[in-house]
Amino acid sequence: MTEPTETARPPMRWLDDIEVGFAWEGRPIAMDEAAIIAFAKLYDPQPMHIDPEAAAKGRFGTVIASGWQVAALVMRDYVETSPFGDLELLGLGLDDLAWSEAVRPGDTLVARREIVEARPSRSKPDRGVVRIAVTVTNQHDRTVMRYVNAIQMFRKPE
Amino acid sequence: MTEPTETARPPMRWLDDIEVGFAWEGRPIAMDEAAIIAFAKLYDPQPMHIDPEAAAKGRFGTVIASGWQVAALVMRDYVETSPFGDLELLGLGLDDLAWSEAVRPGDTLVARREIVEARPSRSKPDRGVVRIAVTVTNQHDRTVMRYVNAIQMFRKPE
Repeated sequence: MTEPTETARPPMRWLDDIEVGFAWEGRPIAMDEAAIIAFAKLYDPQPMHIDPEAAAKGRFGTVIASGWQVAALVMRDYVETSPFGDLELLGLGLDDLAWSEAVRPGDTLVARREIVEARPSRSKPDRGVVRIAVTVTNQHDRTVMRYVNAIQMFRKPE
Repeated sequence: MTEPTETARPPMRWLDDIEVGFAWEGRPIAMDEAAIIAFAKLYDPQPMHIDPEAAAKGRFGTVIASGWQVAALVMRDYVETSPFGDLELLGLGLDDLAWSEAVRPGDTLVARREIVEARPSRSKPDRGVVRIAVTVTNQHDRTVMRYVNAIQMFRKPE
């Protein structure tokens, strides 16, 4: 485990603090076969994720990680490297999620995030929505997953 | 656990078999506090998900489930109630995911799915994309999560 990326800036705690264009990188996420199989047995029990023998004969040649496992590990990394201090990250939703490449045992992933929008709410003046574009690449610099995440953030009290 | 919804139809194994408008319901998904905390400790370790005392003083009053846990449990239910037989469900992506309501200990969720599109690929004539609109409601019939899932499906070999 490496330490979180040093951002050398105070945490952005309020919508008013958000700097559109701010980008940061997560920690390396190492994928191993046992963890891929363990997650999938609980949440995505398909042969391509849980059965190395079946997977060896299948279209990918190895087990591949459930896309939901990748998403969950990226969420943990997000909590661990958040530029928002100890602010709770309340996800409102996601857009344009693509699982564009198989994730295999031995892969190491990195998530890169960029704040692409910070918009006050029209109906609730005390809060707003921050959108963060997330791109997850593997050790070959291929994008394995991407999405845009919307989180809720409050405005600084007057 | 109830049995999967009886669809009284042969599984749709190929893109050519897909019936747009076909809808099915999953099994009840019971949420309990221990499982909410266990998942979040691994993948979304924020006080609102893992610390009942902190959560009691927070905006929700109880721990709430990580949205990623709800998504993962809905994936398991999808595998268990698939109308596609033993076909592997290869997710290409998601659109318009919204976590619209907190999920709490004691909640029981149900996923309803409807096939909204089946489209052959322009570049790869042996396959196509099937889109499935997923709506997850709680015991009060409030929608807690929704998204549109795109999966890859092959055409029937000639």
